[in-house]
Amino acid sequence: MSEKLAILGSTGSIGTSTLEVVRGQREEFEVISLSAGSNVELMIKQIREFHPKVVSMASREAAERVQAEVGPYVQVLWGEEGLLEVATHPEATYLVSALVGSQGLRPTLAAIQAGKKIGLANKETLVTAGHIVTTEAQKANVPLLPIDSEHSAIFQCLNGESMSDVERLIITASGGSFRDRSRTELANVTVEDALKHPNWAMGAKITIDSATMMNKGLEVIEAHWLFELDYDKIDVLLHPQSIIHSLVEFQDGAVMAQLGTPDMKVPIQYALTFPNRLPVQTTKLDLAKIATLDFREMDFDRYVALRLAFEAGRAGGTMPTVLNAANEVAVARFLRNEIPFLAIDRIVELTLESHQSSVNPTLEEIEEADSWARRFAASQIIPVLG
Amino acid sequence: MSEKLAILGSTGSIGTSTLEVVRGQREEFEVISLSAGSNVELMIKQIREFHPKVVSMASREAAERVQAEVGPYVQVLWGEEGLLEVATHPEATYLVSALVGSQGLRPTLAAIQAGKKIGLANKETLVTAGHIVTTEAQKANVPLLPIDSEHSAIFQCLNGESMSDVERLIITASGGSFRDRSRTELANVTVEDALKHPNWAMGAKITIDSATMMNKGLEVIEAHWLFELDYDKIDVLLHPQSIIHSLVEFQDGAVMAQLGTPDMKVPIQYALTFPNRLPVQTTKLDLAKIATLDFREMDFDRYVALRLAFEAGRAGGTMPTVLNAANEVAVARFLRNEIPFLAIDRIVELTLESHQSSVNPTLEEIEEADSWARRFAASQIIPVLG
Repeated sequence: MSEKLAILGSTGSIGTSTLEVVRGQREEFEVISLSAGSNVELMIKQIREFHPKVVSMASREAAERVQAEVGPYVQVLWGEEGLLEVATHPEATYLVSALVGSQGLRPTLAAIQAGKKIGLANKETLVTAGHIVTTEAQKANVPLLPIDSEHSAIFQCLNGESMSDVERLIITASGGSFRDRSRTELANVTVEDALKHPNWAMGAKITIDSATMMNKGLEVIEAHWLFELDYDKIDVLLHPQSIIHSLVEFQDGAVMAQLGTPDMKVPIQYALTFPNRLPVQTTKLDLAKIATLDFREMDFDRYVALRLAFEAGRAGGTMPTVLNAANEVAVARFLRNEIPFLAIDRIVELTLESHQSSVNPTLEEIEEADSWARRFAASQIIPVLG
Repeated sequence: MSEKLAILGSTGSIGTSTLEVVRGQREEFEVISLSAGSNVELMIKQIREFHPKVVSMASREAAERVQAEVGPYVQVLWGEEGLLEVATHPEATYLVSALVGSQGLRPTLAAIQAGKKIGLANKETLVTAGHIVTTEAQKANVPLLPIDSEHSAIFQCLNGESMSDVERLIITASGGSFRDRSRTELANVTVEDALKHPNWAMGAKITIDSATMMNKGLEVIEAHWLFELDYDKIDVLLHPQSIIHSLVEFQDGAVMAQLGTPDMKVPIQYALTFPNRLPVQTTKLDLAKIATLDFREMDFDRYVALRLAFEAGRAGGTMPTVLNAANEVAVARFLRNEIPFLAIDRIVELTLESHQSSVNPTLEEIEEADSWARRFAASQIIPVLG
């Protein structure tokens, strides 16, 4: 048994893929604790299959429904306190941090401080508090293992290499559901259109972030912290097929890349078993069948969100927190049909413009900036489109 | 000063690129000894620039011409004995083995036994005597560092990885100068046509080998020895742009690749500085500018030489030696306009069919098989084309 797992966000896209990995390597993993939001049915199924000791749901009501079904042998908690218990369970050796949004930060930090290895799928942890999280991880001597396919690819490209030889990271971007439309063609797109990602089946929030390219922006900021590199050394490259998951260029001109059929099980398992690789039930890459890989330069005028992310990342302080919080609110509003697609970027931009950034913020200052940005973004009624 | 270099084949394509690498990293390398064939002028220039202590030329006459020019401070030797002296010079720490053909075997073995690190560009060393060379290298605890761009790519992909996790090597092939012609369209191609390689500027022999795909066949056999993998785990993939230099697929489905603008300085310097990377003056890879990478399945009916190489490799014994020797003779005959292009494969095939292979051959048996194959291949007057 190599790892005893705590999984935050077990009913989400990354969570269910993580449990699929566990299913494929039963002798390698034990599931200790799980958390979910409101998906009571799936949580009950997961409890029956994986026998965790503790689980947590978002609300008391959901927790009670789960508890009623699974009986007294599983402890069912709820809310923020529940997340912390799941993340820091004394028997767990490894936390898979796969919550969506900034709620993942506190429990992930707690798990780091409790000495758990961290498999990081929750971007916001590094985006909003990269300086705190990386410092704590170093203090606790805990590895932060990327689960995102792009960061996993970079991490694999860096295997055996020296960071001082790195010239730049090249993060690939599929371009999302609207990659073949110009910005003016985006004015009237629907929620349904936006949710059709060409290559990956993911949650709604991340699929919209993929269409705006904010997802890539958050990945850029995450990469900055994860690999301790200047923003000048991080590039984004449009690659519609999502076969090359990312690349690293070294100072000798050599470029290493990690490729594969899009399947989150691969980076998830790699994060769980690093530095070893175990077999994965996945479709093997067949380049002759794929025949062609395409690449295009990133257009920062077309993808305003990516420009904003680079700007917020470079500005530092609480700006990335504000970027992320405003984006979460704007995406939620778009998904509720309250605002048009192009208003997402615009709300984020307006919120950033109105924010007074703190330098080297504390967790409290980050949470304050986060709340402020959410209120501000929620209050923007008729954003000017352009 | 990290390495003191002996270079076999210093006036050839790999040799001159190696000296370019030295020129770019003067403080890292010292040139101790050089060998060349008949290019007296270039050898004299190299002596004046790099101040080796010993050099060697193919013939006594060439050696005397060099000696007359450079004066008594450089020892100028010739012939097989000269190659051995250059390869095993007591001050050299590293041999770059870049002779073309099977003449590279004896001096490379001698350098291994003398404890030099080996940068291997001479394929025939492993193709003809892989079992002896790898055994001797293990005995002497000497690393064999690949210089070929494909093997260097694989070597880089394996950095930090475990061989037991490797599912297969995928060696890319540009397809050479005739990749867009069918086999029947090859009947009347000229030497001049064959020498036009689309991506790499190389010597005549290797450019023809690239057009027949024998070059890739020799690389497959070399990879088998270098990475200790079964032929079933080695694939060849057509990739016209020569940007992905090769790939490794692991058992978790992840595929690592090494990419770059075609420039031999990169793999040469990597072999010299491994595990470090130093800056190289080279055109940086710009995937957005390249825009498209293409891949096609390998056609073994079209590229008969590659099929023959796999067969000879799997058969083992002296078969790879015979493959290589017959090919050298056939290519030389084609370059002299004695035989048509398609006769190259056919002569190799006839020679293999007529050979009685020895199991686990000694160096003497290998040289005997080599001589026999050369005589046989030279004697085939009107090969049947097919």
